[in-house]
Amino acid sequence: MTQYEQARAGTITPQMARVAQREGIDAETVRDELAAGRLVIPANRLHLAGCGGEGAARLDPCGIGRAVSTKINANIGASPVSSCRQQELIKLQWALRYGADAVMDLSTGGDLDETREHILAHATVPVGTVPVYSMIVDRPVEDLTCEQILACIARQAEQGVDFFTIHAGIKREHLGLVSRRKMGIVSRGGSLLAKWMVHHTRQNPMYEMFDEISAILRQYDVAYSLGDGLRPGCLADASDAAQFAELDALGELVARAREAGVQTIVEGPGHIPFHEIEMNVARQQAVCDGAPFYVLGPIVTDMFPGYDHITSAIGATAAAYHGASFLCYVTPAEHLSLPTPEEVKQGCIAYKIAAHAADVARGLAGARRADDEISDARAAFDWQRQFELAFDGPAAEKIRRRDVKDDQEFCAMCGRDWCAMRISKEVTQGVGQGRDAADR
Amino acid sequence: MTQYEQARAGTITPQMARVAQREGIDAETVRDELAAGRLVIPANRLHLAGCGGEGAARLDPCGIGRAVSTKINANIGASPVSSCRQQELIKLQWALRYGADAVMDLSTGGDLDETREHILAHATVPVGTVPVYSMIVDRPVEDLTCEQILACIARQAEQGVDFFTIHAGIKREHLGLVSRRKMGIVSRGGSLLAKWMVHHTRQNPMYEMFDEISAILRQYDVAYSLGDGLRPGCLADASDAAQFAELDALGELVARAREAGVQTIVEGPGHIPFHEIEMNVARQQAVCDGAPFYVLGPIVTDMFPGYDHITSAIGATAAAYHGASFLCYVTPAEHLSLPTPEEVKQGCIAYKIAAHAADVARGLAGARRADDEISDARAAFDWQRQFELAFDGPAAEKIRRRDVKDDQEFCAMCGRDWCAMRISKEVTQGVGQGRDAADR
Repeated sequence: MTQYEQARAGTITPQMARVAQREGIDAETVRDELAAGRLVIPANRLHLAGCGGEGAARLDPCGIGRAVSTKINANIGASPVSSCRQQELIKLQWALRYGADAVMDLSTGGDLDETREHILAHATVPVGTVPVYSMIVDRPVEDLTCEQILACIARQAEQGVDFFTIHAGIKREHLGLVSRRKMGIVSRGGSLLAKWMVHHTRQNPMYEMFDEISAILRQYDVAYSLGDGLRPGCLADASDAAQFAELDALGELVARAREAGVQTIVEGPGHIPFHEIEMNVARQQAVCDGAPFYVLGPIVTDMFPGYDHITSAIGATAAAYHGASFLCYVTPAEHLSLPTPEEVKQGCIAYKIAAHAADVARGLAGARRADDEISDARAAFDWQRQFELAFDGPAAEKIRRRDVKDDQEFCAMCGRDWCAMRISKEVTQGVGQGRDAADR
Repeated sequence: MTQYEQARAGTITPQMARVAQREGIDAETVRDELAAGRLVIPANRLHLAGCGGEGAARLDPCGIGRAVSTKINANIGASPVSSCRQQELIKLQWALRYGADAVMDLSTGGDLDETREHILAHATVPVGTVPVYSMIVDRPVEDLTCEQILACIARQAEQGVDFFTIHAGIKREHLGLVSRRKMGIVSRGGSLLAKWMVHHTRQNPMYEMFDEISAILRQYDVAYSLGDGLRPGCLADASDAAQFAELDALGELVARAREAGVQTIVEGPGHIPFHEIEMNVARQQAVCDGAPFYVLGPIVTDMFPGYDHITSAIGATAAAYHGASFLCYVTPAEHLSLPTPEEVKQGCIAYKIAAHAADVARGLAGARRADDEISDARAAFDWQRQFELAFDGPAAEKIRRRDVKDDQEFCAMCGRDWCAMRISKEVTQGVGQGRDAADR
């Protein structure tokens, strides 16, 4: 039985207990949220046991849903143009170090099978993939058969992948809506399946074979991450007919996945102007019956390539505040190149900011404790403690120490005499003592 | 007569006409918004003429208010610990290059008068200062007299400063509220005046002498930027009694400043959790009768020192969407050190993102044009045009070119065969032609 089926049967599994422990909530709550489809624990049975043999990393179960803290995903993976297995393992390490709660191996270059195997063997966090990528290595998508699709999904499930992006919601009848767009289809999986549909004048095979695919996922307890192949690729295409037609199909598939006993997350945009984020999240939550929403940003302006970790962290904060549970990072390299390890770090940090700021804003129990602790250290001029509590202490320490070398109370922004907080302490003492001073 | 007085008399000044031209709106609208106190054009008569003699930069008038695009301010200025006049002129150049609509010289170190003079002579954008800083150079704040305060404000107005932060809203009766706080007073000006009040057991001299100060500002048409000396310095102190007590005083002062014919902006926080931003902005707009709101961020989480340009750009986007008009940048060095020129650049870009994303979201006419143009270039694989249209084209080009050297259509993220947009074009053509293909 999958986590979902066990939760519905009233069972608390070790994975649910572990998620409850990590989040500081009751195991019953985790079970009930899971049973309602509002919480997902992507945990392939094989990754839980440690796939890759002796010494392989075992998955530490991670919960994704509104009842727990907002999670972030880091996309890694080589492209045909750039990187290699070793480089991607380095990115995995950086992603884990800077707080990624999950990673997706989106490799389209190098030996995909081998890279995936190595990432799984080193990842303590859930690993996701987009199986269609490996289906079309050395093969035009038009040549892809239904048998090959199922075999490939089964192969990756056997490797221990924890969640699969399956673009089953993009249907043949949606493709006409795409021609009205400025940017067309910007999802790799979506565009490949669209090409297959146009070539064969047939329905999306992922949609047609959804029950067969669900059966494979159920066997290993792989979670669905239902892909949004028609997500908008620019503000002009946001919230359009194509996007919402696919969302309706995804809503239908959530129900079918649950019937099949498979845990399900739903993917979302993309590029959305700031004022449409709340509506988009609310619509997904309604259409998909509360299934965890996994958004890519959204990016709130198109004109800052090189800074899309920031444009999208703004959107991600709003999305997570309004109802998304899982944030797929965007790095400064988005739209331009494959990210470097440093850009993986920058993307992770921007998204930890978004996730945490949203958790504080939505009043998640205990979320603000970290802010209060560092504020106490700041008020006490305890710089060492600040660096310990800061998300990236070494970066903060480096900035501080370039001008002020020792542990003086002030920083170089104001210097001692101008330090508002130092003066403020004198004032508070003065007020407290009802100090009386000579008039001028 | 000041801009405000002339607007109320029905006159369209050359400054109003210039703002209308820059914003692409009617001069009558600029005049009417100015007359209502909802728009401010900080423009000291002397800076308009070019202060600093032959060859000095002349101010290009800039409008701040909801009827026009959201503006950003870059804080520069040496501290006693770090930097110098020459270094601050370099920061001014970087700030102007990366889109600062205004700069504040917050120097507390070096020769303050001389630095201010040089910045004014080189700035085509409005320059703001906090006059109390230069009042207490070589003098404990307790020794400051009312005559010295007025003399110093007059001196800086004569130099050509366009707007002054005057912390007139922090009153003696508010200081007791500060003792409940985690962080106390984090505004330099606020803490200095609080110390003066406690020492002398007297009311804030900026409040007591508000009419005399207004008379000086009116003479040169310097705008008020009413300072928030009690802004919260951490999430725990946000939206507290001290903050809102001062805001009420600021609302009273807005009315008095308008009676005196002086243009007025109101400063706001600071550190505010994401969900309280809308309320804070709405409250300021109500209490201050629509006076332009000038916010510092707000920062939405305390635990990411080194990345506060991002934590605050998130808050700034929400603030500008909900009603703020003027965003004071925060750099990665905030809470740690004086920013370097590179950090000035990073702060400016994060805030151009916030301002632009908010302008798109609030439906400012024409705001999305820049996004649509770059999206067209992206869809056409016109990389050169993308770099021309990108806010920081050289940064984007550098990322792209590290893996793909020539002008190939794809980028290194996916490579040619995996490029969704390339495949999407084939699909759209296929759909358009009703292409029929052999079934599998």
